[in-house]
Amino acid sequence: MLTKQANPAEIRQHCRLQTHTGNTSGLAAGFVQANVVILPKADAAEFLQFCQLNPKPCPLIAMSGQPGDIGIASAAVELDIRTDLPSYRIFHQGELVAEQTDIREVWRDDLVTFLLGCSFSFEEALLADGLEIRNITEQVNVPMYRTSIRCQPAGKFSGPMVVSMRPMKPADAIRAIQICSRFPQVHGAPVHFGDPAAIGIADLSQPDFGDAVSIKPGEVPVFWACGVTPQLAIAEAKAEFCITHTPGCMLVTDIPNSKLALF
Amino acid sequence: MLTKQANPAEIRQHCRLQTHTGNTSGLAAGFVQANVVILPKADAAEFLQFCQLNPKPCPLIAMSGQPGDIGIASAAVELDIRTDLPSYRIFHQGELVAEQTDIREVWRDDLVTFLLGCSFSFEEALLADGLEIRNITEQVNVPMYRTSIRCQPAGKFSGPMVVSMRPMKPADAIRAIQICSRFPQVHGAPVHFGDPAAIGIADLSQPDFGDAVSIKPGEVPVFWACGVTPQLAIAEAKAEFCITHTPGCMLVTDIPNSKLALF
Repeated sequence: MLTKQANPAEIRQHCRLQTHTGNTSGLAAGFVQANVVILPKADAAEFLQFCQLNPKPCPLIAMSGQPGDIGIASAAVELDIRTDLPSYRIFHQGELVAEQTDIREVWRDDLVTFLLGCSFSFEEALLADGLEIRNITEQVNVPMYRTSIRCQPAGKFSGPMVVSMRPMKPADAIRAIQICSRFPQVHGAPVHFGDPAAIGIADLSQPDFGDAVSIKPGEVPVFWACGVTPQLAIAEAKAEFCITHTPGCMLVTDIPNSKLALF
Repeated sequence: MLTKQANPAEIRQHCRLQTHTGNTSGLAAGFVQANVVILPKADAAEFLQFCQLNPKPCPLIAMSGQPGDIGIASAAVELDIRTDLPSYRIFHQGELVAEQTDIREVWRDDLVTFLLGCSFSFEEALLADGLEIRNITEQVNVPMYRTSIRCQPAGKFSGPMVVSMRPMKPADAIRAIQICSRFPQVHGAPVHFGDPAAIGIADLSQPDFGDAVSIKPGEVPVFWACGVTPQLAIAEAKAEFCITHTPGCMLVTDIPNSKLALF
């Protein structure tokens, strides 16, 4: 049975044995969990450029060395990317065609794996500083919204920036900006605060993804670039083939969160 | 004739010779300008504690070594604090009694000098990053406001925090928070943004000190702790004797602004 005390390698082993197939929220405290995007070599160069041009929504932590590689030694020892996530989604031409716990049967020797930073890391840093994270307090998924901010396009990849939102008092938001600025590889500082309409969000109570959270008097909504952004770009590009993690079911890496701190 | 190209030592020499008796805004680009507070030894320990407890409004850069010392070698070579500012204000029992360009005649051998950071340093860093500073654009003094935020008291010294305000778009405010966080000795990150009433400010168009500036659509007011705070605390304390710089007429030091950056 998987416990909260399990280390990253143990968690990946449970995933591989399919004794853990659910989300990874709250597991392996202190270690980086990564968004996973797997694309054929034919699309990988353009996707890498998309990440390079849009580092806030698509912060690249690591990528596989050669097409077909199932390991990424810099992120996780003895990784088999085909089995070590709890759950995967498979897309053809941008359409979701399957969700499964093992992708060995669909693996190809031209596939390239990208690991992108995830908000779990910065939420941990904010909580450690004594700040409240509303979606955690209210035990729901963070609310996420499509915005009018356009990503910088790279070849077939383009689309709107998606943001996550956490309400805070202004003094707490200032502290959160300081803390998150130390972690550019997990989305970094917020991209906006205050008026949602300024970034094309019509109604905070109607998120495009995740769940709405309450906003108390004296709080302002604070918006971070979100890792759903590349998923939309891949869907819009109608990439021939793509595999991602199932939302919330991240790759648990061996990288301590503190290793991603700039200073 | 004093020019904008003059170095700090040259500017202090002009002050000493009374060939420059006006404000120091825009002079000696790249060097720290300091707020100056001079108090008798009897009050110095409590004032030092007040600075220690309230580092955002009272960021101590340097102080004189022994009572009566006229130099502070760590801040300025060959400093004579009695002559090297353009203009001084003299207070008895918290009341302004004189404004003069030389304080040799009132100097006492029990006086202790404090140098506190000033917003000129962080404004320079913001401008260098391409941000607009509205009070500079509009060529007026920055607007300053008394707030409902109370300083931590230290002996006879207490009072409200005074803040300066610069309007910015949210994305620019986030960048300003990042930049200013590197400079805790010149007030550091803002203390508030958005709703003025949340910190006890009734009307932004009626600053308590300085001049109002325009706020454009889509901008929010951003508030920094201000060096006027210790002046109010000294006035409220009715300190027996105190000398400060005349507002805007700072001590130009030999310390490069970059030396105050944390990283």
